[in-house]
Parts: sequence; C-alpha cells; structure tokens
Amino acid sequence: MFGARCLLRALRSCSSAPCPGHKPSAKLSVRDALGAQNASGERVKVQGWIRSVRSQKEVLFLHVNDGSSLESLQVVADSSFDSRELAFGSSVEVQGQLVKSLSKRQNVELKAEKIEVVGNCDAKAFPFKYKERHPLEYLRQYPHLRCRTNVLGSILRVRSEATAAIHSFFKDSGFVHIHTPVITSNDCEGAGELFQVTPSSKIKVPEENFFNVPVFLTVSGQLHLEVMSGAFTQVFTFGPTFRAENSQSRRHLAEFYMVEAEISFLESLQDLMQVMEGLFKTTTMTVLSNCPEDVELCHKFIAPGQKDRLEHMLKNNFLIISYTEAVEILKQASQNFTFTPEWGADLHTEHEKYLVKHCGDTPVFVINYPLALKPFYMRDNEDSPQHTVAAVDLLVPGVGELVGGSLREERYHFLEQRLARSGLTEAYQW
Amino acid sequence: MFGARCLLRALRSCSSAPCPGHKPSAKLSVRDALGAQNASGERVKVQGWIRSVRSQKEVLFLHVNDGSSLESLQVVADSSFDSRELAFGSSVEVQGQLVKSLSKRQNVELKAEKIEVVGNCDAKAFPFKYKERHPLEYLRQYPHLRCRTNVLGSILRVRSEATAAIHSFFKDSGFVHIHTPVITSNDCEGAGELFQVTPSSKIKVPEENFFNVPVFLTVSGQLHLEVMSGAFTQVFTFGPTFRAENSQSRRHLAEFYMVEAEISFLESLQDLMQVMEGLFKTTTMTVLSNCPEDVELCHKFIAPGQKDRLEHMLKNNFLIISYTEAVEILKQASQNFTFTPEWGADLHTEHEKYLVKHCGDTPVFVINYPLALKPFYMRDNEDSPQHTVAAVDLLVPGVGELVGGSLREERYHFLEQRLARSGLTEAYQW
Repeated sequence: MFGARCLLRALRSCSSAPCPGHKPSAKLSVRDALGAQNASGERVKVQGWIRSVRSQKEVLFLHVNDGSSLESLQVVADSSFDSRELAFGSSVEVQGQLVKSLSKRQNVELKAEKIEVVGNCDAKAFPFKYKERHPLEYLRQYPHLRCRTNVLGSILRVRSEATAAIHSFFKDSGFVHIHTPVITSNDCEGAGELFQVTPSSKIKVPEENFFNVPVFLTVSGQLHLEVMSGAFTQVFTFGPTFRAENSQSRRHLAEFYMVEAEISFLESLQDLMQVMEGLFKTTTMTVLSNCPEDVELCHKFIAPGQKDRLEHMLKNNFLIISYTEAVEILKQASQNFTFTPEWGADLHTEHEKYLVKHCGDTPVFVINYPLALKPFYMRDNEDSPQHTVAAVDLLVPGVGELVGGSLREERYHFLEQRLARSGLTEAYQW
Repeated sequence: MFGARCLLRALRSCSSAPCPGHKPSAKLSVRDALGAQNASGERVKVQGWIRSVRSQKEVLFLHVNDGSSLESLQVVADSSFDSRELAFGSSVEVQGQLVKSLSKRQNVELKAEKIEVVGNCDAKAFPFKYKERHPLEYLRQYPHLRCRTNVLGSILRVRSEATAAIHSFFKDSGFVHIHTPVITSNDCEGAGELFQVTPSSKIKVPEENFFNVPVFLTVSGQLHLEVMSGAFTQVFTFGPTFRAENSQSRRHLAEFYMVEAEISFLESLQDLMQVMEGLFKTTTMTVLSNCPEDVELCHKFIAPGQKDRLEHMLKNNFLIISYTEAVEILKQASQNFTFTPEWGADLHTEHEKYLVKHCGDTPVFVINYPLALKPFYMRDNEDSPQHTVAAVDLLVPGVGELVGGSLREERYHFLEQRLARSGLTEAYQW
C-alpha cells in the first residue's frame, strides 16, 4: 500500500523534471509573444493556425494565430521548411527564437527552428479563402469553423472580456453573486412568452410527477433576487434568460444573457444610476483597454466610428432628464414621429433615438415615468396630478434602452392599494 | 434644446454636491466596518437586519448583520433608543461613531447616534426564533426568508466567492470564456435524460415552426467548446446544465452549474491534470481566505472537520494512479465490496471512497481507463493487450468523482474505426 504510493510520487516528480541536456522552449500564446518587450532570442514554442503563407526564394513567412489576439505572429523560416502542408488553415507548432522584427509592421517575430504540422487543412474543401472577406450570411453556414474568422474571433473575445468585467465590477462593489434558477414556475414579467420545460418523451415519468407544477424557462431572476436582498444588501445575477417571442429581428433572441441586481436600503434613483453608469463605464473601459485590436476591427468594418462614440460616452457624466421633460423635448421636435409623443404614452424606439441625439449622442437616464405605465412594485412619487413612479431607463446611442430599474415600493398600504387596483390582490394572498 | 441640457447638468451637479454645514456619514458594509483598522470615532452609517437585542439598564446592545459577512456588528446605544420596534429580524439604519471595542469578543463597535427602523418585524409571525438553531428541513419551508440564517448565508457567500474564483482562474490562465447555448438540439452525452423545451401553450405558434427541430436543455457544452477550440487554444464555459433524472438523492439535481474547458494542442494528461489541480486549489484557497468565518461555521456544524481536510488537500501534490493500479489496490483490499473490483468494470462510489482513503485522504487522479468503458473520442493509448484510453478522473475525499477529462483522439483513422465499431458511422456522415 505504502509502496504503491511512493512509486507514484516518484513517477510524478520524474515526469515534471526537465530531461538533462535539453532545455524545453517556453510555451507562449501569440498575444504574449507579440507583447514581449525587448525580444532577444528567447527560445519559445507557439501553437496555432496558419493565417497566411508567403514563400520567397530563400525565406518563408507564415502568420500564425491562436485566438488569443486578433493579430497573428509572423514566423520567419528558411525556405527549406516549405511544404504543401504549410497551408492556410493548417494547425502548427513552431519552435524558435523570439526576435525583434526588422519590419515596421510588427515588433517581434519568431525565427523558426522547428515547424510541425499538427493538423493539415485541405484548402479546396475549406470554406474560407485566404485574403477573402466573407459576408456574415456566408459564415452562418459554417458554425463549426466561423470562429476562426477575424470578425467572429473578435466578437467572442470582446464578449469574454465584457463578461469578466461585469463579474469584477459587482464583486469589487461588494455584491454577492446569486445563481437564480433557470427552470422556474414563476412568470416574472407576466408577458406569457414562455418556454415550457417537460421531461423528454423518452423518460418514463408521468409528466405531472416531475416537478408537480408546470415549469418554464426563466424570463427574469428578479423575484429570486428580491428574496435574497432581504438578507444581503447587494446581490446580482448574470445568467441566461429566455423569451418565446416568435419574431425574426435583430432585437429578439430566444436565449440571451442578462445582468440583474437588487440593492437593499436604496433611497434615491441617484444611487441606482451611479451603479448603472459605473457598470456601463467599467465594462466599456475594460473592453477598450483589453481588446484594442478587436475594438478597432469593429470600429472599421462592423460599426463604423463606434470606438469614437464609446470614448465620447465615457468622457462625461450621463445626462438625467425626467419623463415629463423627455415628452416636452419630443413635442418641440421638428421631426415627425410615427407615434405622436404624448404624456402618459410609452416612449418608442424613434423617440429614444431622438432623445439621445438631442442630448448630444451621450447616454441619457430618463426618470420618473407615469405610474400607469409601470408595474405595481415601483415606488410612488406622490407627485399628483402627474403621478409618477421612481423608475429609470438608460438610453444609449445606437442601442436604445439598455438598462431599466426602479426604487421598489416599500410602504405596505401603497402596495395593497396598487395590487387591489390591478386586480392582483388574490394572487398575492397566502 | 441647449438650455434644457444645461439645466439638467446643473441639476445633477447640485444633487451630488454635499449640502453646506452637514458632513454625511460614510456608508459602510458590516464586513468593512469589522475590518476597520484603528477605528477612532469615524462617523459611519450601517444598514442591516437585527440579529440580537440585549437591553441593559443604561445601555442597549444590538447585533446588526447585512449579509456581507457571517459576523454581525455590535451597536452600542443609549438605553433611550430602546423601543419595541428594535427587535430580532427588523431592518435598521444606524449612524454613529466606529470605535475600538473594550470587549474581547470584537475589535470594533458602533456607538449609535441615530437608529432608524426601516422595516419592522413581527417576532411572533417570523418563523425563525432568536438564538434557536433551526434544522435545514424546517428552513426549507421558508425559501423567501431562509437566506437570513447563518447556514444559508454562509453557503451563498461561499458559492459567490467560488464562482468568482473559477472565473478568475480561467481568465488569469488565458482562457476565453464562451457562453455555450442552453437550448440545444444536441444530446451530447447520449444518456437520453433530457428536458424538452417547447413554446408555452399560450403562444399561438405551431410547435414545429419555432425551432424547426426538437430542442432540449443542454446536458453539456462540450461539443460547442470543441468547435471553439478550433480557433482559440483555451476555452471554458461555466453555466447551467440539466438532467431529467427522476431521482431524489443528494447526488442528482435537475439543474446545476458545471465548469467545462477545452485545450487545443494538449499532448499529455499531465498538462491536463495540472489545470484540474490548479482550478481546485485556487478556488479552495480563495474560499478559505475570503470567507474564513463561513468556512469555520461549516467546519463546526455542517461538515465537521472539513477545513482541516481541505487544508490537508492543499498541502501536497495530488496523487496519480492508473486505473489498472486502482483495480489492483481494490483487489488487495481487506474490505468487502458490493461490486467485486475487476479490470474492465466501472469504479463504483464504494471503490472511489476506498481509493481516496487508501491514498491518505488526498485527491487522487485515476488515469488510463479501459477503452471499452469510455466514449469513442478519447485517445487510444495503443497499449494492447490492456487497451486503455488517455482519460482521467479526479477523486476527491468526501465528494467522489469531481472532475473528468481526456485527451481527444485526433488521428482520423482511429476515429473512423471507433465510430464504425460503435455503429455511429452513419450519424457522423455529412
């Protein structure tokens, strides 16, 4: 028994010890290789996919990408390395020396000493062609390969960074992260656009016995977070959310990720807006500084000028206008709207666009909406005759409504009255 | 237009500027208040729920908890503050001076100057009683209140810290985070224990038109990550996963969170085990150091001795034994197993428990399982007559199998043969 254990320990330390007389190359990501300051011949190993091959009389140039950055690493090899297998799309492992590049296009390059083709690629069968910019509609046909393109690679890196930034922002601000349930019997928004969940027909369980009640995919974790905010003063969730909206548009997805937060003891919209603005700015700044090349690509080819617009948004405090002021601005507009702006009516996309433009293409908080437009749990501002609630929507240039929130009504008799008026009293009695 | 904008800007800066002659108290979480070094009378504001009230002749002691830590902050107030509303369960806002405590039980306490009851609590109706330790079965009846108890609070804080640590570990190691889809037409594991997803009956869409194919809740993001690992060398996901297993046990949940990762260009199980061990140790160390009181609570009341066991696990390298060695160890055991250990058969929970104990209550990697036990995509070790694959399971004391993984078979003809042998060839032809 003891013997076996010792043997294994010995085995382990042996395999992790370097073999004598052979110094292994340090494995580097392309991102780290490109970022190396004062490269001066360190032996490194880089693995990735060939993005371009340029064969000259005596030298062979490869560009190798491993997804860690939009930029590829230039590999310079003796032409003797040239082979048909070193083709666009092939995966390779290159060992060599990291040196300063003589060209102005890059700071460092890898002087290859060994190139191994790990997986070759049949250029004819491969649906993407070297140097060709394929339209997104074309890429959609190849979900298993499209992440190798610049555009999809950039978007996935940005999403990964933004996700991490959102988690960090809340953690640094003292929020407790809660995994709210995905399968739920709640219909939080009451919109009815739910997906129902049932055990697959292959399973021999009478359906009604599985959860005892009909269950759905969550449309919001708000109710669960509200419960948690009775024990933690700051909670958030960031999980998948679902809507069974049968519409093929840019604004509707069956499945998407949503950030939700609840703060206890919150007394003013001002404090709430500070969190919203902080989240937006921290996340945006993180993406701008951690993915500069990816942002640049979007800026040039996907959403022209977007980087400038984002930097403009970061510079100033977001504006705050009341719903009533918003309606006044819309009424005075020279523009003709499809939906005539009127106090008491919802703001439509055309209105949001105008407001954001009017305010100087900067994010705008619209606060204090008519009570009649909002759910029963939002706090009554008691400002008759207008009668508004302490709700806020953040309108962002190019997006529209990005964040919404409210102070919650904590006065019991107000809640009772609102529930009675909306005919919800019975549903809320236990 | 311009006027409106200026007015609003002015409004904003006014409301955020402090009123003259009144220095507002800094809002502090209980955790930050307790951690204050050299408290010397700073004016602060703390908000939370009363955990205990002790009324003496001239002094009133309150313990206030806000979920930021297991520990509560002691509030010391003049007995003139005493009121029936200051009761167990009430939520309060306390302003006062943070000072060194004379008692040995705590370092700091809050000398109250103002106490406001934000929400009172009817002690009779409140299901939890002061100083009573309620069993978990009792707490289950109050899902909207149970997070106010020590046990649930601790578990949720630990989960939040562990979640953040998992994200950080992968980010710091250069992994790209991928949100793999929750709704999918894949049945990755092929176990058939799926939940089916359909638009709720309220929606007027012929079912077959919504996604065109039957869709399910994901059982694994592996296939999606494998696709991504053709463009990024390191990817991970950490999302909800579902099994329609109709079993009421401690080991089966319909919905749970799972970490999955794929690494390209991986050549040895050694490198894979390093990632697994790193993830386990980093996450455990983060929890131990960020939630010491919560860990202590579990250690004392929930899983006696767990902290010592965890610290023991962190001290040494995890052991590595082969499946063949594991079977030998089990065969030589004096213990009688329900399932007789035999080469070629799965390891059962009783076997895993024995192995972990045998190895000194430390995590053990079991590697190189029989080919016949594992899926077609695991890499053939070509070690006939045994014939194993490069698979690994991590067995952890008190848990059993916590992590599993393998080298993927990259040799095309091996894959073809394995698929043909398992009768899967047709399914994988496009």
